[in-house]
Amino acid sequence: MNTLGNKLKVTVFGQSHGHSIGCVVDGLPAGFRPDMEQLAAFMARRAPGRSSLATQRKETDIPEILSGMVEGTLCGAPLCAVIKNSDHNSADYAALKDIPRPSHADFTARMKYGESCDLRGGGAFSGRLTAPLCLAGGIALQILEQRGIRIGAHIAQVGNILDRTPDFAAIDTAALHRLSEKALPVFDNTAILAMTQRIENAAQDGDSVGGMIRCFALGLPAGIGEPMFGGVENRLAAALFGIPAVRGVSFGDGFDAAAMRGSEHNDPFLVKDGAIVTQTNHAGGVLGGITTGMPLVVNVALKPTPSITREQNSVNLSTMENTTISIHGRHDPCIVPRAVPVVEAVTALTLLDMLLEDNTWS
Amino acid sequence: MNTLGNKLKVTVFGQSHGHSIGCVVDGLPAGFRPDMEQLAAFMARRAPGRSSLATQRKETDIPEILSGMVEGTLCGAPLCAVIKNSDHNSADYAALKDIPRPSHADFTARMKYGESCDLRGGGAFSGRLTAPLCLAGGIALQILEQRGIRIGAHIAQVGNILDRTPDFAAIDTAALHRLSEKALPVFDNTAILAMTQRIENAAQDGDSVGGMIRCFALGLPAGIGEPMFGGVENRLAAALFGIPAVRGVSFGDGFDAAAMRGSEHNDPFLVKDGAIVTQTNHAGGVLGGITTGMPLVVNVALKPTPSITREQNSVNLSTMENTTISIHGRHDPCIVPRAVPVVEAVTALTLLDMLLEDNTWS
Amino acid sequence: MNTLGNKLKVTVFGQSHGHSIGCVVDGLPAGFRPDMEQLAAFMARRAPGRSSLATQRKETDIPEILSGMVEGTLCGAPLCAVIKNSDHNSADYAALKDIPRPSHADFTARMKYGESCDLRGGGAFSGRLTAPLCLAGGIALQILEQRGIRIGAHIAQVGNILDRTPDFAAIDTAALHRLSEKALPVFDNTAILAMTQRIENAAQDGDSVGGMIRCFALGLPAGIGEPMFGGVENRLAAALFGIPAVRGVSFGDGFDAAAMRGSEHNDPFLVKDGAIVTQTNHAGGVLGGITTGMPLVVNVALKPTPSITREQNSVNLSTMENTTISIHGRHDPCIVPRAVPVVEAVTALTLLDMLLEDNTWS
Amino acid sequence: MNTLGNKLKVTVFGQSHGHSIGCVVDGLPAGFRPDMEQLAAFMARRAPGRSSLATQRKETDIPEILSGMVEGTLCGAPLCAVIKNSDHNSADYAALKDIPRPSHADFTARMKYGESCDLRGGGAFSGRLTAPLCLAGGIALQILEQRGIRIGAHIAQVGNILDRTPDFAAIDTAALHRLSEKALPVFDNTAILAMTQRIENAAQDGDSVGGMIRCFALGLPAGIGEPMFGGVENRLAAALFGIPAVRGVSFGDGFDAAAMRGSEHNDPFLVKDGAIVTQTNHAGGVLGGITTGMPLVVNVALKPTPSITREQNSVNLSTMENTTISIHGRHDPCIVPRAVPVVEAVTALTLLDMLLEDNTWS
Repeated sequence: MNTLGNKLKVTVFGQSHGHSIGCVVDGLPAGFRPDMEQLAAFMARRAPGRSSLATQRKETDIPEILSGMVEGTLCGAPLCAVIKNSDHNSADYAALKDIPRPSHADFTARMKYGESCDLRGGGAFSGRLTAPLCLAGGIALQILEQRGIRIGAHIAQVGNILDRTPDFAAIDTAALHRLSEKALPVFDNTAILAMTQRIENAAQDGDSVGGMIRCFALGLPAGIGEPMFGGVENRLAAALFGIPAVRGVSFGDGFDAAAMRGSEHNDPFLVKDGAIVTQTNHAGGVLGGITTGMPLVVNVALKPTPSITREQNSVNLSTMENTTISIHGRHDPCIVPRAVPVVEAVTALTLLDMLLEDNTWS
Repeated sequence: MNTLGNKLKVTVFGQSHGHSIGCVVDGLPAGFRPDMEQLAAFMARRAPGRSSLATQRKETDIPEILSGMVEGTLCGAPLCAVIKNSDHNSADYAALKDIPRPSHADFTARMKYGESCDLRGGGAFSGRLTAPLCLAGGIALQILEQRGIRIGAHIAQVGNILDRTPDFAAIDTAALHRLSEKALPVFDNTAILAMTQRIENAAQDGDSVGGMIRCFALGLPAGIGEPMFGGVENRLAAALFGIPAVRGVSFGDGFDAAAMRGSEHNDPFLVKDGAIVTQTNHAGGVLGGITTGMPLVVNVALKPTPSITREQNSVNLSTMENTTISIHGRHDPCIVPRAVPVVEAVTALTLLDMLLEDNTWS
Repeated sequence: MNTLGNKLKVTVFGQSHGHSIGCVVDGLPAGFRPDMEQLAAFMARRAPGRSSLATQRKETDIPEILSGMVEGTLCGAPLCAVIKNSDHNSADYAALKDIPRPSHADFTARMKYGESCDLRGGGAFSGRLTAPLCLAGGIALQILEQRGIRIGAHIAQVGNILDRTPDFAAIDTAALHRLSEKALPVFDNTAILAMTQRIENAAQDGDSVGGMIRCFALGLPAGIGEPMFGGVENRLAAALFGIPAVRGVSFGDGFDAAAMRGSEHNDPFLVKDGAIVTQTNHAGGVLGGITTGMPLVVNVALKPTPSITREQNSVNLSTMENTTISIHGRHDPCIVPRAVPVVEAVTALTLLDMLLEDNTWS
Repeated sequence: MNTLGNKLKVTVFGQSHGHSIGCVVDGLPAGFRPDMEQLAAFMARRAPGRSSLATQRKETDIPEILSGMVEGTLCGAPLCAVIKNSDHNSADYAALKDIPRPSHADFTARMKYGESCDLRGGGAFSGRLTAPLCLAGGIALQILEQRGIRIGAHIAQVGNILDRTPDFAAIDTAALHRLSEKALPVFDNTAILAMTQRIENAAQDGDSVGGMIRCFALGLPAGIGEPMFGGVENRLAAALFGIPAVRGVSFGDGFDAAAMRGSEHNDPFLVKDGAIVTQTNHAGGVLGGITTGMPLVVNVALKPTPSITREQNSVNLSTMENTTISIHGRHDPCIVPRAVPVVEAVTALTLLDMLLEDNTWS
């Protein structure tokens, strides 16, 4: 459903064109004081209208805290935060009520919930629901950072343009921080222009383009995670597929491992400075569901935005006749840049939950 | 942990070299009579020693049913099934107690559980634990088949050899049945030789090779799944990452969607024979976490078997010194063929659980 | 934590003196149109200031629906409803920050959450948090009623004054409806005066008094519930102990069964009008965790309100010295009358959840 | 369903007349060495045939450990233990297939599972399934004892004979130990004779009698438990209602609190030897769902054994006609003595689970 986590539970609510959206976060540690400016800056990375590559819709997205905080300090009770929806032109969507947009959730939501379903602007399936996830995840990121765990992501791919991922040893806290300050968070600055052109070309064609995000978590202790169905991969995948448009999740070498030999993919162990490390990190920091202590590497594939202005075939659900649809309004030609902080947020929420769960009683 | 599912709960237990392995399956429908011969045939597809490509270890793997069945009929109580471990040469592993095998779970298990951890033959992290999963999943497959839902998988890739996946419209129940009868379940028979050679070459080099499995579910109704964190993708990914060696899970076009444009990836709707279908199936049968009624397509990347006979670098955990390790014994040079029924089993368990949960009260 | 239910999930948030309180309800059936006037009337039964027996604090308690409803119809997305807290005189509580009130959660909350804990007015442990429970439960009651299931409760005991519970066969829908319209919902009207006097006497003495509520559910089908840890008793007890002041939960004859013989307590079966019923209903409608189809009977014991104006011994947590405390402000001398709709609400939420879960796939 | 717990998960399986019964316990701490003799002695307290007051059926009940243990030490993998059923005279039950025994789960199981349901000897609803619970709980008791937490129970009531419960301050570890060594664990030895007579009289009359068990947990730290639906009461009640025949669960003064005034029931705080305690313990060690650090007191009401030899009215489910039933075989005229260790076991499993969950990450 709309709840993520065990000891740290996030429940997301709201529809794109309803009164407001928000979340309830249960299990945050009492006594922590979130840096609200840093949180706003983090949420701004997801907000629309930030660059020419994203939709020009305006969202003020200033969350109101209804509970869980007293004078800026978390008090142990569930945090409820609400973001008001500004006025939407729901008329844009009224005409579409019976004509599902291809590759959106309109059709499947209608199959599940029937005609009462709120499909305006994607309803509860809208990417806008990732704003409260960023709010919750932004606090989780701060808590993790205080414990020496740093999470950050880069855009590994937009269309057929790839960023270069440096050797794992070169990815440190400073490198992740630099990424977070870029409009297009890539390591290879020459990729910025190429990716920008891919996105702009798609937009000019009334089309869209997909991409891939690679997220790192540095500083995780070894030994976190449960076997079989409770591993880091199981938990992160279950969470990350909650982000709209995600079509694949992999760890370390991911699908490239299929073409590799064991001698290429295995990570030999090594004693270094009194600690056990691996010489390489093809595993992406997790073996048997449990962290190795090496950087966690998770890859997330995103499909091209399904909202394209080109005419598409669809059906009229009330007349059961074939028809066509042209989607207007302001849409992201590529959701990948705005999805980067969302991937970081969901990764942070999941890892913090697992760390809170992991403690042995002593 | 070691339990999968909500209304259909599977709990797996056992260690590779312990007394026995098995599972408890709670929530199976009372009154169903599993076809035990069909179940044995399904489990035999996973068993070792079946072809020259797999380990020559012998496992009899005849499960004993301790509960949940009366005279061949499920009675509603939890089914417990146990498979005895035959004699193992645990001495093979005694020497390795302090030297973790690269890219196995030895090191992380030790970090989590300490010295008491049973690492003989991979302990509870052994691929052998997939035998009870196949037992539980084999029953789920039969229940689904009775309801008109058919699950089957092919080997899409071994090393750099790809099978050709036919157009989704050509993949029907008969095609899936034909796949299940092949030692290497591929659509393109010319791939059999090439894949076989890749595996044999790796074995000759004391090495191993990875691969990819693509699994289909035909006949699923539209409208199954929950939004956000309860979708088909979330649930299947969380389950499939429980199979040892899985490094990635994706749906439909998966990671290829990253390079696509919306106009290529979107699936237009169409009225056909009075039903709503999509012209293409890039989504792999699921939008917004909810089934479209089109075939479900899930892709699973598996790493090369980490057990290779070549000498590798490792560490001695008690002396904290660098050392080397050579792994002997009988191991699969490629786990992919034996993993095919495991992927089918886990997919069946997850989908049956979701179907049992989905019913609206009426 | 603060979430109840599986397929119907209620998450409660807020502190007594915070910005607002509320709940998120996930899993309500799309298409249902709650009767908002009936809901307001139900919530009014819990609201303070209704009679001379309850606190004279005023709460407007008009909930604002933030999500999950479009033009009065549930749309399938989570319902979020918020109730603003009116101005509180938090100064009343400031002095108490370090002096825990006996038999309140002040001390245990402080032990768990530390000094950041919001204890003003009981914080998140306040009985005020039952308002959103009534909101969610009020909708569940309407959904159940539409399906022919009627829930209602009477005050079985206040102090040592007992109401007379009629024979189970005499408790029908009309009888439950009549109860719900009384300020003190008892069957025996002569108990009203006696209970009122007990409460007023306690109030005059600066004291409080406890009581017992017996709740019925009529119209439940036979066969609902899971064995062992998933039974109706397990689920209802786990939910009902979430209501502040509840000290005991029992079913049917409850603790009286301890003194009975089998021949007295057993309920013989009987064919009546073509259906199987029991001649008596000592079991309270549930055997082995599963409903019999007879009326469900659950008994809930509530302790006397811990807020009394008499001076009590306590400690100062910062100086670790013994001290005394006198609690002022407006408090209920007996919480039982206002707890009646709360017991009904929580019972409704739990039973609706179990019914939504129970459906066999067909 | 048949699984209890979050971080410590116990799954129980088996039917009374099936091949075997047992449990899987996931989450036990690696490295712990259970004292198997102490465990056998604990299980013997539940076993039948121990005194003239209990059924003379013989159960050898020697569990076989299939997994989770290496040379007597827990290894972190799930523990599976199996107890073989000895030969049963299932013919005793064959005649009863269509005639549900009053106040047993025969009827409700049939309603839920249909005709395939295994009702021989109560099937999966049999009290025999408490043997694996005692096995799992016996290990939990040992782990808790190592951490300074001691759990023990007395028979507070059999029929209308009450044991005297001493003042809470007088109940220490030694007192609980002495209880555990008695065939009828009561504080007041004069109650032994009276209770014995009540049970024997009932047996002579072909009848049975109920009772009440009061269980204590000493040494629990303050601050354990979650608010609202995650409290100690919620969790313990949900678990204890899993024991067959339990009809009520209460804490501290329980249902007696209904008749009390706040000035009688409140527990004043006191600084004693540098620690905060309460002068009385009417709350039974828990306020707002969270432990106070005082002894936990939980009361469990058990109904009289429904198996009585007297003729009772029932129905024939296949002919839908009224009939009578006389239950033969060996049955406990009072289940309370044998239920004492079961209550201790389930209390231990729940508290250990909550302690394992509770740890803050540090």
